[in-house]
Amino acid sequence: MSVGLKALPQLLAVTGVSLGTASAGIRQKNRDDVTIISCHPGTAISVVFTQNRFLAAPVLVAKKHLGQSSPRALIINSGNANAGTGEQGIEDALSCCAELAQHLQCSDYEILPFSTGVIGEPLPVDQIRKAIPECISDLSEENWPAAARSIMTTDTVAKGVCQQLNINGETVTITGIAKGAGMIHPNMATLLTFIATDATIEKTVLDAMLAYCVGRSFNRITVDGDTSTNDACVLMATGSRAGAKITQTGDKNGKAFMSVLLQVFKELAQAIIRDAEGATKFITIEVVDGRDEEDCLQVARSVALSPLVKTAFFASDPNWGRILAAIGYAPIAELDISKVSIALNDVMVLKDGALASSYTEEQGQAVMQHEEITVRISLGQGQSQARIWTSDLSHDYVSINSEYRS
Amino acid sequence: MSVGLKALPQLLAVTGVSLGTASAGIRQKNRDDVTIISCHPGTAISVVFTQNRFLAAPVLVAKKHLGQSSPRALIINSGNANAGTGEQGIEDALSCCAELAQHLQCSDYEILPFSTGVIGEPLPVDQIRKAIPECISDLSEENWPAAARSIMTTDTVAKGVCQQLNINGETVTITGIAKGAGMIHPNMATLLTFIATDATIEKTVLDAMLAYCVGRSFNRITVDGDTSTNDACVLMATGSRAGAKITQTGDKNGKAFMSVLLQVFKELAQAIIRDAEGATKFITIEVVDGRDEEDCLQVARSVALSPLVKTAFFASDPNWGRILAAIGYAPIAELDISKVSIALNDVMVLKDGALASSYTEEQGQAVMQHEEITVRISLGQGQSQARIWTSDLSHDYVSINSEYRS
Repeated sequence: MSVGLKALPQLLAVTGVSLGTASAGIRQKNRDDVTIISCHPGTAISVVFTQNRFLAAPVLVAKKHLGQSSPRALIINSGNANAGTGEQGIEDALSCCAELAQHLQCSDYEILPFSTGVIGEPLPVDQIRKAIPECISDLSEENWPAAARSIMTTDTVAKGVCQQLNINGETVTITGIAKGAGMIHPNMATLLTFIATDATIEKTVLDAMLAYCVGRSFNRITVDGDTSTNDACVLMATGSRAGAKITQTGDKNGKAFMSVLLQVFKELAQAIIRDAEGATKFITIEVVDGRDEEDCLQVARSVALSPLVKTAFFASDPNWGRILAAIGYAPIAELDISKVSIALNDVMVLKDGALASSYTEEQGQAVMQHEEITVRISLGQGQSQARIWTSDLSHDYVSINSEYRS
Repeated sequence: MSVGLKALPQLLAVTGVSLGTASAGIRQKNRDDVTIISCHPGTAISVVFTQNRFLAAPVLVAKKHLGQSSPRALIINSGNANAGTGEQGIEDALSCCAELAQHLQCSDYEILPFSTGVIGEPLPVDQIRKAIPECISDLSEENWPAAARSIMTTDTVAKGVCQQLNINGETVTITGIAKGAGMIHPNMATLLTFIATDATIEKTVLDAMLAYCVGRSFNRITVDGDTSTNDACVLMATGSRAGAKITQTGDKNGKAFMSVLLQVFKELAQAIIRDAEGATKFITIEVVDGRDEEDCLQVARSVALSPLVKTAFFASDPNWGRILAAIGYAPIAELDISKVSIALNDVMVLKDGALASSYTEEQGQAVMQHEEITVRISLGQGQSQARIWTSDLSHDYVSINSEYRS
């Protein structure tokens, strides 16, 4: 199940970006598992990759190709991560790139490969190569929904977001899709995200935008603390709207665009948490009044990662003692317990280190029935704040991860 | 269930230490939940407390009392942690100390209080005070087994270890008990441990022994990464064997004693993992060939804490990709993937960063059927090593922690 996730909204075309999908039967028959995203020449592309030291073969190849050339197309397969596959894995990723390059009549370097799924099994490269012609004949600017479905693994719903805004009198579209449900943690977990806009943005500016938005969206979600070997987030700007030119992040146009872009990133990141493996609750951990943002993030992470806190949320148990304990072991330099307050949505639970006089167990029980809960922790030390999103820890999480090989 | 835990072994008396238990009906009727441990005058006592910033009331009181006087007796209750209880909690802990002090005709400062159980509920101090006379009339040097049972919370079996050795021709006994099953992580989790010996050891030497042994036992186990608000480990030396005098840790007697003492600590720590909430497997993570011990510990912790690794063990799935991914995000300065090898017991899985040529899925499946598994990770960087112990993540872990308020 997922928490508060609606069906895929309308995903508008981004002029200059075409998508095609096909079935290679990698793990399941009768579902598309290979996706090609092709962008017209001159598209600026920025990519952020996982910080795991064990980089999957496609990540190694994509990083190398990015250093050689500007990409023309992406090839994504689900069902197999091509990770822990050694030299053979690299050859397999290169082989997929070569096949696609031949069809598109471009250089191998102009293709970026992405894989997600089971770790440690050989990529069924022949099946994928055979599916490429069908992907190509399927290429269309209207295919964002099919691509959103094709990249799924343990996701229960396809995830996409679309926003429009006006820049210099031109309507600019931002459309993005994402997949990921487990092995989710800051610094890119098992998630792939592809976001495109038809605005005109130079690569250096696009790089800055991607770093900013990832830092405040995908690096602020955690399901289980695991950072995977394959994650990537791709941001493309086709420049099809020549008048909608954004030359810096700090001016009026830049700020307007960034604000909407960040919204798209946040909604996609939150969609991943809403569909987290076994999730029954969507939990926002908001830490305020900290000395600096990093302190707030450390406290938020301690709480968000605590299995005891997460199982209490699953049980709808207002077990604030576990939240308190998790705050207490956050690795921050100073913590004055007598200044710490905790609220669950609008229910004040702990005030200045002690149970709030207004708090009743009935209030706590009632607020824990909600599907969406904000844990607001005030450290009483300063003006900084940070927010991260997480899910609860349920029986289904254990079932999914003991039955599925990721 | 527990993994490979036998019934409580014979727990020999330590001359000078008496134990008494009684039922105060804190959470359950018809079970003892208050324990008094009394030691004769002149006993040296060392204590290590939790490093959580939110210190439970009894920890605050025990720390203060230790600074004032040498303890005469300990009072321990299970079922209620007296944590997150503010000023009232401190008064309650002091009130228990005062009651016991009156009966023993000693100063309040000579009593150390310990509590374990639910966080955030008021200590039923009247019930506990009423149980104290019964504990006192029950005091006996033979009562280690009853005390081991009385301090349990979610533990499914009572935990105790006893060893003897010869020092200067005298037989020295070391007897210890421990409780703890969840919220277990280095730096003292929800665990209480009481270990006594009749050897003659000065407090400064005893302090050094405790620090050394805790660092290599209780700080090397993890169930869920949660460090609790109440943990403590107490080491007592009664000096009843006047001839068995140990004046330093580094000489012949010191080394002989420390070796056996560390064995007692390790067995108690491992017993906690064997009885970890929902555990079906006892897993040793052994990291070798690291640059230094800290690097090895970081890698071991990453693997031991990964919910994906832990659910794979629960499923008896040789999913080495998840182990590899967890190694990859360990926060160490350098990691050369092409030098990393992984073995599960005697089955070599990954050799120099790639799947071992000898490995078969059948071997992996077979080794994962064992209840006790050692994951041996070679980093190929140096000569250092470290070992930690953990459990798997099962449905029962989620059940226990969503049904029990700790």
